[in-house]
Amino acid sequence: MSDASFDLKYTSFGGRIVMVGFGSIGQGVLPLLLRHIDVKPGQISIVTADETGRAEAEEYGVRFTVSPLRKGNYLSTLDPLISEGDFLINLSVDVSSVALAEFCRSKGALYLDTCIEPWSGQYTDPSRSPSQRSNYALRETALALRDKYSDGPTAIFTHGANPGLVSHFVKQALLNIAKDTGVEAGKPESREEWAQLSLRLGIKVIHIAERDTQVSPIPKAAGEFVNTWSVDGFVGEGSQPAELGWGTHERHFPADGHGHSAGSRCAIFLARPGASTRVRSWTPNEGPYHGWLITHNESISLADYLTVREGEAVKCRPTVHYAYHPCNAAVLSLHELAGKNWQIQKTKRLMMDEISEGMDELGVLLMGHAKGAYWYGSQLTIEEARRLAPHNNATSLQVTVAVLSGMIWAIENPDRWVTEPEEMDFERVLEIARPYLGTMTGVYSDWTPLLDRGLLFSEDVDEEDPWQFKNFRVI
Amino acid sequence: MSDASFDLKYTSFGGRIVMVGFGSIGQGVLPLLLRHIDVKPGQISIVTADETGRAEAEEYGVRFTVSPLRKGNYLSTLDPLISEGDFLINLSVDVSSVALAEFCRSKGALYLDTCIEPWSGQYTDPSRSPSQRSNYALRETALALRDKYSDGPTAIFTHGANPGLVSHFVKQALLNIAKDTGVEAGKPESREEWAQLSLRLGIKVIHIAERDTQVSPIPKAAGEFVNTWSVDGFVGEGSQPAELGWGTHERHFPADGHGHSAGSRCAIFLARPGASTRVRSWTPNEGPYHGWLITHNESISLADYLTVREGEAVKCRPTVHYAYHPCNAAVLSLHELAGKNWQIQKTKRLMMDEISEGMDELGVLLMGHAKGAYWYGSQLTIEEARRLAPHNNATSLQVTVAVLSGMIWAIENPDRWVTEPEEMDFERVLEIARPYLGTMTGVYSDWTPLLDRGLLFSEDVDEEDPWQFKNFRVI
Ligand SMILES: NC(=O)c1ccc[n+]([C@@H]2O[C@H](COP(=O)([O-])OP(=O)(O)OC[C@H]3O[C@@H](n4cnc5c(N)ncnc54)[C@H](O)[C@@H]3O)[C@@H](O)[C@H]2O)c1
Ligand SMILES: NC(=O)c1ccc[n+]([C@@H]2O[C@H](COP(=O)([O-])OP(=O)(O)OC[C@H]3O[C@@H](n4cnc5c(N)ncnc54)[C@H](O)[C@@H]3O)[C@@H](O)[C@H]2O)c1
Repeated sequence: MSDASFDLKYTSFGGRIVMVGFGSIGQGVLPLLLRHIDVKPGQISIVTADETGRAEAEEYGVRFTVSPLRKGNYLSTLDPLISEGDFLINLSVDVSSVALAEFCRSKGALYLDTCIEPWSGQYTDPSRSPSQRSNYALRETALALRDKYSDGPTAIFTHGANPGLVSHFVKQALLNIAKDTGVEAGKPESREEWAQLSLRLGIKVIHIAERDTQVSPIPKAAGEFVNTWSVDGFVGEGSQPAELGWGTHERHFPADGHGHSAGSRCAIFLARPGASTRVRSWTPNEGPYHGWLITHNESISLADYLTVREGEAVKCRPTVHYAYHPCNAAVLSLHELAGKNWQIQKTKRLMMDEISEGMDELGVLLMGHAKGAYWYGSQLTIEEARRLAPHNNATSLQVTVAVLSGMIWAIENPDRWVTEPEEMDFERVLEIARPYLGTMTGVYSDWTPLLDRGLLFSEDVDEEDPWQFKNFRVI
Repeated sequence: MSDASFDLKYTSFGGRIVMVGFGSIGQGVLPLLLRHIDVKPGQISIVTADETGRAEAEEYGVRFTVSPLRKGNYLSTLDPLISEGDFLINLSVDVSSVALAEFCRSKGALYLDTCIEPWSGQYTDPSRSPSQRSNYALRETALALRDKYSDGPTAIFTHGANPGLVSHFVKQALLNIAKDTGVEAGKPESREEWAQLSLRLGIKVIHIAERDTQVSPIPKAAGEFVNTWSVDGFVGEGSQPAELGWGTHERHFPADGHGHSAGSRCAIFLARPGASTRVRSWTPNEGPYHGWLITHNESISLADYLTVREGEAVKCRPTVHYAYHPCNAAVLSLHELAGKNWQIQKTKRLMMDEISEGMDELGVLLMGHAKGAYWYGSQLTIEEARRLAPHNNATSLQVTVAVLSGMIWAIENPDRWVTEPEEMDFERVLEIARPYLGTMTGVYSDWTPLLDRGLLFSEDVDEEDPWQFKNFRVI
């Protein structure tokens, strides 16, 4: 990105902007938003739960209020801050996305979220069944808003890097594979057309394949959880059941797998936390690796979006899931957390200025087509991230630029009511995000999860179809 | 240890000492040996495979020869260096312990090893079955020397920290538990008496429970295996099948478990590498943790030693295995190695001078007795290790002092032929080792592998007997 484009205003916004939460993502969003949306600091205010980020808010002249939102106080707290034509962006943990979206609708305000969160404690409430603690169930509560209200101001759910950008990556990847394998793609517009393209290409499995190699010279201490983004966010989603969009090619239903009794039934969950569930995957820089099958909304929304139906019957759907290799310090933190039976560490550390090197390599790995496997995504180093934007590391920048581009799209398309990333204009979003994503890479690979398997010990694999979930899973 | 005892000579030795291998352990042994055995540097020579440690050898005035031993050259290489009354200590990797011991016997020389190693490549030779690649099989080849020759000069196998010291810890722990639970222990002398004591105390499971917390400010790089002792040694044993002494209380034979068709049959192996097999364990400083079930000779020799028989029938035997939490950088290295399907990293790093803090907490966890669980062992920090001996870290010092004490015991008991740690005088060995082991700690704990289990997801456990292997294993 040339320095000149740092001044590019994509749109202007006349209302007020309220940011709920101001952690690693909120702090990274603020400078981008002031840079690329024509808006004054005085229009923006922050409502958050602790002092984190106060200095930065003051640096930019943005109002900063510590006032944790709860079920009992969010309406009264937000009421004076939001009215028609305003924009609420939720970058907190522990605050119900559905409650805030419904509140915004009642006010005629825009809404954007990077996930679908419940109120505090619900991810780890043993009185709720694993099914109730799943993202599948959370997504159903968001989709149900469409039944409750047929229209409303745009409310974007799950638009960060992943969930978020990666759904746009998948569309670009489908077009690239079509071109490279001589399949006529046309210009898919509708959900059905994208799903048909995926079917024609023979996509069986899509991984969100991420390897974060950022490191710091400060070793992880005992009893400390270290990460490059929210520790609470990661532990929360890691404690949910592992979930995946369940493809129609799968012929080995997992022994610990469970379906759902309502909704599209496009996904299943495993009766265990994602933080203890590993899968084999591949990225260009890392090569083969073991990642964690952390539940994410895109595993469900992408699988749903790419489902081809004939009447009521499901004809084709890819398996979709996350294969997350967090930064090494987070791998150690997860290992310690598992050793303590998921009792979270006393201390939390977010790696930001201390990061000495590394990149966040975040992309989508589409498998089963004529050329095997294709990874498409962003390779962003910490050096690039620092050059591109203040108050960000490589991980946060991929998220914050997605928040920015999602906000711009919402301002440009203000009356779409409940919106998932797949329903947005992927080209517009990627156009805004691309300058901040480092190297955008698309590569084919002959990797499969059967490569180099069973050399020293025989393993129970399906030799006939490499793309079976059974083959990806690490036992 | 007071500085004065640094000068304490436990014995004197008039013959030549040949050290085969001069890596982390060899380099740590040399200063201890010169300090506590009355021997001149000119009596000692090193035969090794690379330049590692040449400067240290020169510092101490010890002859250093690079000459890798192989099946085809070891006799001719060692022939001029060893004759009657000499001592060969094997601190290498990839050199057959049984071959060297037999060679020493033919010369009338003493022998000591810290493990039972095969010639290079056999741990990862896919043409050998997992059973053939097991430590059980290697131990049988060493024990078979007793059938081949009824006597000979002392040849100690597997006398490092573990295997080695930990077998002595177990005896001390049994006496401590007896005292604390009011069981009359007497003074057990024979194998049968120790086994009877273990039975009377109700010991069902023994873990070698080790947590190495040593860290360095240099982060592990991609493609690098980092450890506090031999990377080759660790990867070698980690690639062997997971093995454990199999207790008589066990009522769930593992689905991937296999027995042996010859020998005492005191142990089983799992058809998977120890480096991918995790178990729950506990140490005083760490608390509950997940360690790796790496195969080790003590899992087999201790289980064998503590077996109570009635005639031919086995009446009682504890389950015995390792639960190793290596240093954090090694945890990451293992994770990367697994991700690459056990293709070893290109670069290896041994952490020594760069270590900034941490301890090696190495002990035995005896479970099932009247007071639940009892951990007994060494807590040695890197600061203490550096104060106590040059060229050591906390991990190596626990090993090198075991080599020293084993050598002294062999010099004092020169005609015992094939000897396992359990057959040595544990009090004499511990007397020599103790000043170098930091804090020797014995603590009871109410920890069991069922503690805090199944809070968020139900787990398949045996509620009736916490001490079942099924409950320890991490799935
Ligand atoms: N989609 C994506 O790619 C993506 C990536 C990273 C983070 N996220 C999500 O973004 C959110 C923020 O992540 P982060 O890394 O900035 O987290 P963080 O832990 O760094 O910060 C969380 C912020 O929320 C605030 N907060 C906590 N409870 C609150 C409450 N009750 N009311 C108001 N504010 C509250 C905290 O004070 C803090 O400012 C999380 O939900 C996370 O899951 C999404
Ligand atoms: N029982 C225990 O507690 C314990 C603990 C640590 C290490 N060990 C064992 O001690 C041994 C040495 O460990 P380390 O950490 O010093 O290993 P290391 O990798 O640091 O050093 C190995 C040494 O062996 C030499 N070597 C390799 N191949 C050889 C050959 N063919 N001929 C002669 N020398 C050869 C190398 O040059 C090097 O000097 C290993 O077998 C290891 O398993 C036992």
